[in-house]
Amino acid sequence: MNNRIAGFEIDDIIRNALKEDIGTGDITTLSTVGADRTVKGRYLAKEDGIMCGLDIVRRVFELLDPSIIFQALVREGSRIRKGDIIASVSGNAGNVLTGERVGLNLLQHMSGIATQTARAVDAVRGTRARIVDTRKTTPGLRVLEKYAVRAGGGSNHRFNLADGILIKDNHIAAAGGIANAVAAARLNAPHSLKIEVETENFEQIDEALAAGADIIMLDNMTVEDMRKAVERIKGRAMTEASGNMGDKTDKELRAVAETGVDLISIGALTHSVKALDISLKFEY
Amino acid sequence: MNNRIAGFEIDDIIRNALKEDIGTGDITTLSTVGADRTVKGRYLAKEDGIMCGLDIVRRVFELLDPSIIFQALVREGSRIRKGDIIASVSGNAGNVLTGERVGLNLLQHMSGIATQTARAVDAVRGTRARIVDTRKTTPGLRVLEKYAVRAGGGSNHRFNLADGILIKDNHIAAAGGIANAVAAARLNAPHSLKIEVETENFEQIDEALAAGADIIMLDNMTVEDMRKAVERIKGRAMTEASGNMGDKTDKELRAVAETGVDLISIGALTHSVKALDISLKFEY
Amino acid sequence: MNNRIAGFEIDDIIRNALKEDIGTGDITTLSTVGADRTVKGRYLAKEDGIMCGLDIVRRVFELLDPSIIFQALVREGSRIRKGDIIASVSGNAGNVLTGERVGLNLLQHMSGIATQTARAVDAVRGTRARIVDTRKTTPGLRVLEKYAVRAGGGSNHRFNLADGILIKDNHIAAAGGIANAVAAARLNAPHSLKIEVETENFEQIDEALAAGADIIMLDNMTVEDMRKAVERIKGRAMTEASGNMGDKTDKELRAVAETGVDLISIGALTHSVKALDISLKFEY
Amino acid sequence: MNNRIAGFEIDDIIRNALKEDIGTGDITTLSTVGADRTVKGRYLAKEDGIMCGLDIVRRVFELLDPSIIFQALVREGSRIRKGDIIASVSGNAGNVLTGERVGLNLLQHMSGIATQTARAVDAVRGTRARIVDTRKTTPGLRVLEKYAVRAGGGSNHRFNLADGILIKDNHIAAAGGIANAVAAARLNAPHSLKIEVETENFEQIDEALAAGADIIMLDNMTVEDMRKAVERIKGRAMTEASGNMGDKTDKELRAVAETGVDLISIGALTHSVKALDISLKFEY
Amino acid sequence: MNNRIAGFEIDDIIRNALKEDIGTGDITTLSTVGADRTVKGRYLAKEDGIMCGLDIVRRVFELLDPSIIFQALVREGSRIRKGDIIASVSGNAGNVLTGERVGLNLLQHMSGIATQTARAVDAVRGTRARIVDTRKTTPGLRVLEKYAVRAGGGSNHRFNLADGILIKDNHIAAAGGIANAVAAARLNAPHSLKIEVETENFEQIDEALAAGADIIMLDNMTVEDMRKAVERIKGRAMTEASGNMGDKTDKELRAVAETGVDLISIGALTHSVKALDISLKFEY
Amino acid sequence: MNNRIAGFEIDDIIRNALKEDIGTGDITTLSTVGADRTVKGRYLAKEDGIMCGLDIVRRVFELLDPSIIFQALVREGSRIRKGDIIASVSGNAGNVLTGERVGLNLLQHMSGIATQTARAVDAVRGTRARIVDTRKTTPGLRVLEKYAVRAGGGSNHRFNLADGILIKDNHIAAAGGIANAVAAARLNAPHSLKIEVETENFEQIDEALAAGADIIMLDNMTVEDMRKAVERIKGRAMTEASGNMGDKTDKELRAVAETGVDLISIGALTHSVKALDISLKFEY
Repeated sequence: MNNRIAGFEIDDIIRNALKEDIGTGDITTLSTVGADRTVKGRYLAKEDGIMCGLDIVRRVFELLDPSIIFQALVREGSRIRKGDIIASVSGNAGNVLTGERVGLNLLQHMSGIATQTARAVDAVRGTRARIVDTRKTTPGLRVLEKYAVRAGGGSNHRFNLADGILIKDNHIAAAGGIANAVAAARLNAPHSLKIEVETENFEQIDEALAAGADIIMLDNMTVEDMRKAVERIKGRAMTEASGNMGDKTDKELRAVAETGVDLISIGALTHSVKALDISLKFEY
Repeated sequence: MNNRIAGFEIDDIIRNALKEDIGTGDITTLSTVGADRTVKGRYLAKEDGIMCGLDIVRRVFELLDPSIIFQALVREGSRIRKGDIIASVSGNAGNVLTGERVGLNLLQHMSGIATQTARAVDAVRGTRARIVDTRKTTPGLRVLEKYAVRAGGGSNHRFNLADGILIKDNHIAAAGGIANAVAAARLNAPHSLKIEVETENFEQIDEALAAGADIIMLDNMTVEDMRKAVERIKGRAMTEASGNMGDKTDKELRAVAETGVDLISIGALTHSVKALDISLKFEY
Repeated sequence: MNNRIAGFEIDDIIRNALKEDIGTGDITTLSTVGADRTVKGRYLAKEDGIMCGLDIVRRVFELLDPSIIFQALVREGSRIRKGDIIASVSGNAGNVLTGERVGLNLLQHMSGIATQTARAVDAVRGTRARIVDTRKTTPGLRVLEKYAVRAGGGSNHRFNLADGILIKDNHIAAAGGIANAVAAARLNAPHSLKIEVETENFEQIDEALAAGADIIMLDNMTVEDMRKAVERIKGRAMTEASGNMGDKTDKELRAVAETGVDLISIGALTHSVKALDISLKFEY
Repeated sequence: MNNRIAGFEIDDIIRNALKEDIGTGDITTLSTVGADRTVKGRYLAKEDGIMCGLDIVRRVFELLDPSIIFQALVREGSRIRKGDIIASVSGNAGNVLTGERVGLNLLQHMSGIATQTARAVDAVRGTRARIVDTRKTTPGLRVLEKYAVRAGGGSNHRFNLADGILIKDNHIAAAGGIANAVAAARLNAPHSLKIEVETENFEQIDEALAAGADIIMLDNMTVEDMRKAVERIKGRAMTEASGNMGDKTDKELRAVAETGVDLISIGALTHSVKALDISLKFEY
Repeated sequence: MNNRIAGFEIDDIIRNALKEDIGTGDITTLSTVGADRTVKGRYLAKEDGIMCGLDIVRRVFELLDPSIIFQALVREGSRIRKGDIIASVSGNAGNVLTGERVGLNLLQHMSGIATQTARAVDAVRGTRARIVDTRKTTPGLRVLEKYAVRAGGGSNHRFNLADGILIKDNHIAAAGGIANAVAAARLNAPHSLKIEVETENFEQIDEALAAGADIIMLDNMTVEDMRKAVERIKGRAMTEASGNMGDKTDKELRAVAETGVDLISIGALTHSVKALDISLKFEY
Repeated sequence: MNNRIAGFEIDDIIRNALKEDIGTGDITTLSTVGADRTVKGRYLAKEDGIMCGLDIVRRVFELLDPSIIFQALVREGSRIRKGDIIASVSGNAGNVLTGERVGLNLLQHMSGIATQTARAVDAVRGTRARIVDTRKTTPGLRVLEKYAVRAGGGSNHRFNLADGILIKDNHIAAAGGIANAVAAARLNAPHSLKIEVETENFEQIDEALAAGADIIMLDNMTVEDMRKAVERIKGRAMTEASGNMGDKTDKELRAVAETGVDLISIGALTHSVKALDISLKFEY
C-alpha cells in the first residue's frame, strides 16, 4: 500500500477541524482540569475492521501540543478485532481531552471507509477487477478518504476534474457525439491523461472504441451485458463497471467482477460511510 | 424550523469544496463543451426522504457563476418521494457541469442526515424527548450537519467545546469528584452556559444533583435504570439519554423516550450518514 | 485564574500583527544592524498595574525567531509596581528589534484591560457581584481581551452570538413579547445555553420570571430599582446590572454590587482601554 | 481630508470581525426573529465628537447582507453633537441585529480616535506643528486607526517598518554611532524613504545634522530644549517632538507646538482610545 | 483554443498581486487625484506579438472597482502589431491608476509567453509535433502561464505532480529499473493517468516499450538519435523530445519536429519570459 | 549586501508554490520510490552567473521535510562558474524529489535576476549611478525579486505604492500641474516619504525643482538631455534615469551613468528574466 499523503493539505484539514471543534476554547476542560495534570489513554476497537488514520491522529495531537506522545500499536491498513488496543496516547491532560474528539472523528471515519472497501476487495479477490472510488466524497476530506480507500486495499479513480478525462452523457451531447467528444479531448487536454468514455449500450461502446477511448465505463448495465461488453472490447480499452455498485451483495459484486471488467467503481465507499466504533479510555 | 445558517462559514466550505473538486480546471468539460452552450437540468429524488441543502446547492452555483439559475421546487425540510422533481437548474452548460458534483455531494449528504434524523424524531413523537445531535460530526462540515439535523426535526446539542459545559468522567477524575468539577465550572466558565454532567449510576446522579448540575446525562444505562433516574431527578435537572442510541430500533428508541428523558443524543445521525440518492438529469 | 487560551487563534492574531507591522521588511534594522549582533533587554513597568500578556509576547518572538529567549520575571495576573523589571529578552538583535513593537502593543493593551478590571473587582470585593465583560471588544482581539479580563480577576460574559442567548428589546419586539421570545428560544436554541432577558422595569422582570428566564439583565436602572428588582426576583434567576457601568466611581460601583446582583457587566473594560505603560530597555 | 482606504484590507478586517462575533450563528436572533421581518434603526450620538467610520459600517452590512440600506446623515470627519442622528439603517431585521455590534464597535472606536486627534489638532492650531500618530496601534486595526487619525485632522507617521526609516538608540548603538547608522541606511535602504534619527540631546542633534538626517526626532526633551533644538537645526531637517505627548494638557501641547517643531507624535491617539458613545435605536 | 481558466485560483492570484502592489494604500494617487475624477485610457502594443491576458486585466479592475469598464478591442490569442490599440479602460481615475501596474504586469508577462510559444509553434507547423510546456513555471502563476501557452497555440504538459506520471532517472534508480518502476506506477497510481518514462538511449527505450509505457521522453538526444528512436518505437508509444529545446533556433526546432516526435517540451517558454511591451496611455 | 528578507511572506510564497506543484500528491514518486529510501544530490551550475536563492531552497525543503539537509557551498551573491557545485542536499528520497522542482524554479529565477543585475552594475561601476529595480515585477514574487536585485549588487526602488511617492504624468494632469501635485502630496502623505516627480523636459524639471521635489525622474530622455538635466538640477534633487534602460548595451548604459544621474531604473531586471541554468544531480 502507498500510504503517504501530502502533508500541507492534511494540516489544513486538521487545523480547520480543531478550530471548528474548539471554537473560542474548551471551556469544560479549562475550567475543571489542572494545567499541569497528565493523562494516559488507550484507543480500543469496539468492532472488527480495517485500521486507518493513525498518522492523522498523531498529527492532530502534534499540531495541538507537540509534547503529547501518540503511539500506534497496530499497522495502518491491518485488520483489527473488537477488543484490540490499537494505540496509546499520553501527555498533558487538558490538551489530550481537547484534541480527543477531532482525532476520533477522523479515525472512525477513515477506518469506516477502509473497512467498507476491504469488504468489497475481499468479495472480488482472485478476479482481475480492482475496486476504485469516485468523486462522490465528503466535501473537504477527499484526500483523506481516497487514502482510506487505499488503506482498505482499493485503488483510486481521479482525484479531481483536472487529473482525468471522463466523458459523460452530457459532454457527449454537448460535443455532438462520442467521436467528436473524444477528438476534442485529445486535441485540447494534456496528453498525460487517459480518455474515459461513459457508455450505456453496445452501440456507444463501439463508438468509443472507434474513437480510441483508453477506458470505457459500462454504466448501469446488467451483469450479462457487462460480460458481453468485455468480450466485445477484447482488451482494446480498460473497462469500468459503474452504477449503484454499493447496493450489491458480496455475491453480486463478485458476479460483476467475474465478467472480466478491470475496474469496479463504488460511490458508496465514500458517500455512505459507517464510522468504525473506536473509543479512547483513560487511566488514572 | 430555524433554517438560516451563517453565510461566511458556508461560503468557505463551498469554495473549499469547489477547489478540491475542480483542481486546476475541469479538463473534460473545458475540452468538449462549447463556451456558449447552455443547459437545463432537473434534480430527481431516487428514494424517499427529507429534503435538505437546497440553499447550499444554489450557493454552489452562485459562487461558480452568478448567471446560473437554480430553482427549488420543494421546501427545505419537506418529505420527498422517489420520483419527485425537487429542483431545476439552467445556465451555461460548462459551469453547470463543473459545479454539479459538489452540489450533489452536499445535497445528498445533508438530505441523508435529515432523513435519518426524521426517522428518529418520528419514533419518539408524542413523548417529551427531543432528538439531539453530538460533536461526532464530519470534520469541516459541522455547521451544515447540525443544520441538517434541524431540517429533519431534531435539535442541536452544543456546536463546539466553547458553547456548552459537559463534564465527563475524565473531567470528574481530574477535578477530584463531581462536586469539585461542577464548582470549578461554575467559578471559571461563562455564566451563560448550562452545566451538564455525565453520569453512569444513581450515586453519580445524586452527586450531580447535589452539585446543582443543570443537565444530567444518563450514559449507557438500561431503559429501566433511565426510568428510575428520571423519577429520582424529578425535574430538578434536564435529562439526556446517551450511548449507542444510533444502534437502536425505532421501538427501542421509543422505549428510551418513554422513560421521560428530555433529550436523546445520537452520534450516528452525523457520524454514519447514508447519502440520500438524488440525481441531476439534463435535457437537450 | 484559568490562564490558558486557544493556541490557533492566538497564532493567527500574532502573525497578522507581525505582517501588519513589518510590511515588506524592517528597513531600518536591516540597514543598520549587523546580522550576527545579539542584544539583551528588560521590560520595565512605568506605572502600577496588573500584568497580562507575557505568554503572548513570548509567542511573538517564537514565531519571529525561535532562538530568541523571553523570560517572564513576574506571574501573569500579578500586581506590578512602577519600576519593576517584569521580563527579559535576549537573542539576535535585528529580530528582537523587529518584534519589539508588536509585543509591546499587545502587552500594554492587555495589561491595561487587566488593570482596569482589577480596579472594578477591588471595588466590589466582599459582595456577591462578579465583574463581567461584554461583546464591546476591539474587533479581532476578543479572545485576548476576554483573557485579560480574567487575568484582572473578572469573569467572561458570552464570547460571541453563538454561546449565549441574550434577548434584548429588539428581539422582544420582533417576537411579540417576552413570553413569546423566551418560548421561541427554548424551542429553537441548543439546550446547553441559558436564556437571559434584558429588562428595563418591574413589569418586564415579572414577565421574564414567568417565562422562566435563567438570567435577568437590569438595564440602566437606578441603584434603588436594582435593589428592589433583586428582592422581587428572590434568586429565581441570576441578575446582571448593566448600562454605563464604566462611568461609575468605585463607590458607585460598590453601591450597585451591594444591591445583591450576581453580575455587573462593564463594556468600558474593553471598549475604552488605557494602555499600561511598559517599556523595553536594551543593554550593550 | 484624504478619506479613502485600501478596500481589500478593510474587507479582511470586517470579515474577521464578523466571524469573531457571530461564531456558529446568532442563536438569539435566529431563534426569536422571523426570517422575513424588517427593521429600521437610527444611529444616535450620545456625546460630542468627530464622526469616523461610516463607510466601514456600510461595508459591514454589505458583506453580511447586500440588501440592507445604510445611509450616512453626516459627513465623515464632521463634528457631531450629543443627540445628533448620524445615520440610518433598514432591512432584514435578523441580519441588521446580527451585524449591529460589529458595526458599532468599529464606529465607536474610530470616532473615539478621531475625536481625541481633533482635540490635539485644535490645541496646536495656528502653529506650524502637525499632529501625527505612531506605530503604537491596536494589532490588526492599523489601517483603520491611521485613517481615523486623518479624519480627526491629524497626519500619519509611517504605516509599518517598511515605509520609513527611523533610527533609534538601539540602531545607533548597533551601528556604532549616528554617522555610521545614517550612512548604512543611505547605502542599503530604498532611496524613496527619508531618514529620521531619534535624538536625546544637542550633541546627537549635531551628529544627525552632520550625517544628513532628513528628520530629527526630539525625544523626551523639555519645551525649552526643544525650542533650542529647533533654532539649532534651522530648517536643515524636519523636527518631531516625541515622548508622552498624550499625557500633556492642551496648554502644554500648544507650548510644544510653539517651539517651532514640524511634527508632534502622540502614541496615545491609538494606544489609549476612549470609544465615542453611539447607539443604534430601532423603530417598530 | 480552450481559453477558459478556473476562476477561484485566478482571483486568489489577482488579489494577492493587488495586495502586494498596493500595500497600505496608493499614497501618490490618494494624495494627488480627486476622489471623483474619471479617466479614459488605451492599451497600446509597443511591439508585435500574441495577445494574452485580457480577461485577467478585466478581472483586476473588477476586483478593485466593479464600476471600471475595461473593453478588449482584439481577440485573446490573436496576433497584434506594434501600434495597435488592444483595449480601453475608463472609470474612476484613482482606482484605474492604482490597478494599472498589476494589470500590465500580468498582461505583458502572459503575452510574452504566448508570443514565445507562437514562435515555436510556427517553427514546427506542418509536422506532427505539438509544442508543450513543462513544470518549469514561475511559482504561483502556473495556471496563468499554462493558459498563455495555449493562447500561443501550444499544448499543456501536466499541471502538477498529481495529474501525470513521469518516471525520471531518479525514480528508475530508486525502483530498480524501468520495468519495476512502470509496474509500480501501474499498480499504485490512478488508472486515469498515462505513464511516461524518461529515456536517454535506445536500451532504455526498449525497456520502456517492453514495460508498456504510454509515452517515452527522449531526453537530450541528437536529432539523428531522435529520428532513430521514433522509428524504433513505431507508434507503440507517444514520443516527447526534451532537453534545452528553448536554446534552439527555429530551424533546429523544426529539425527536431521532423524526426516525427509527437511532442516537443520547452521549459524556456515559462522559465525565461521576455515581457511583451504594452503601455497604457491616458487621455484628458 | 543586506541579504535578509521577511520570513512570513517567504513562507507563504513557498507553501503556495509547493501546493501548486504537488497538487493532491506526487503520484510518480509515491508510486515508485520506497518510503525509507534516502538520496544525496548536488546542485550544479550549468552557466556563469550570480548565486541567489540558497536560503529559499533550504526553506523549501525545511517546510516539506525538516529532516532533509541542504548545504550551501558558495555564498549568496557570489559569482559562480559553469561546472561549480553550489550546494548539496540529502535526506528522504521521496521528499527530496517532490520538492526538487519548486526549489530549482525559485533558485534559477532569482539567480537569473541577480546575474542580469550584476551585469548592469558592472557596466556602470566607477560612476555615481546606482542600478535600481521597478514595480514591474512578477506578481506574487516581488519580495524575492527585489532581494535578488540586491544580491546582484543593485538597489531597490519602492516596494509598493505605499512606501514611496512617485508623481507621474497622470497624477500631474489630475492635480492640475506639478506644483499642485507636489503640494498635495506634501500635505496628505506621510512625511517619512520622499517625493519623486516624473519629468520629460526641462520645463517640467524646473517646475519640479520649484515645487521642492526630492527626486526627479528623467523619463525617456536622450543621454545629452540627461547630462544637461543633471547640470541644471545641480544636486538640489536626486536624479533617476528611466525608460527602456533594459534595452541598452553595456556601453550605452555606461553613457547614461556618466551623465551624473544618481539612479538608473531598469524594469527588465524583473519583467524579462532569463533563468540561470542550474541542475540537481543525484548519486546512488
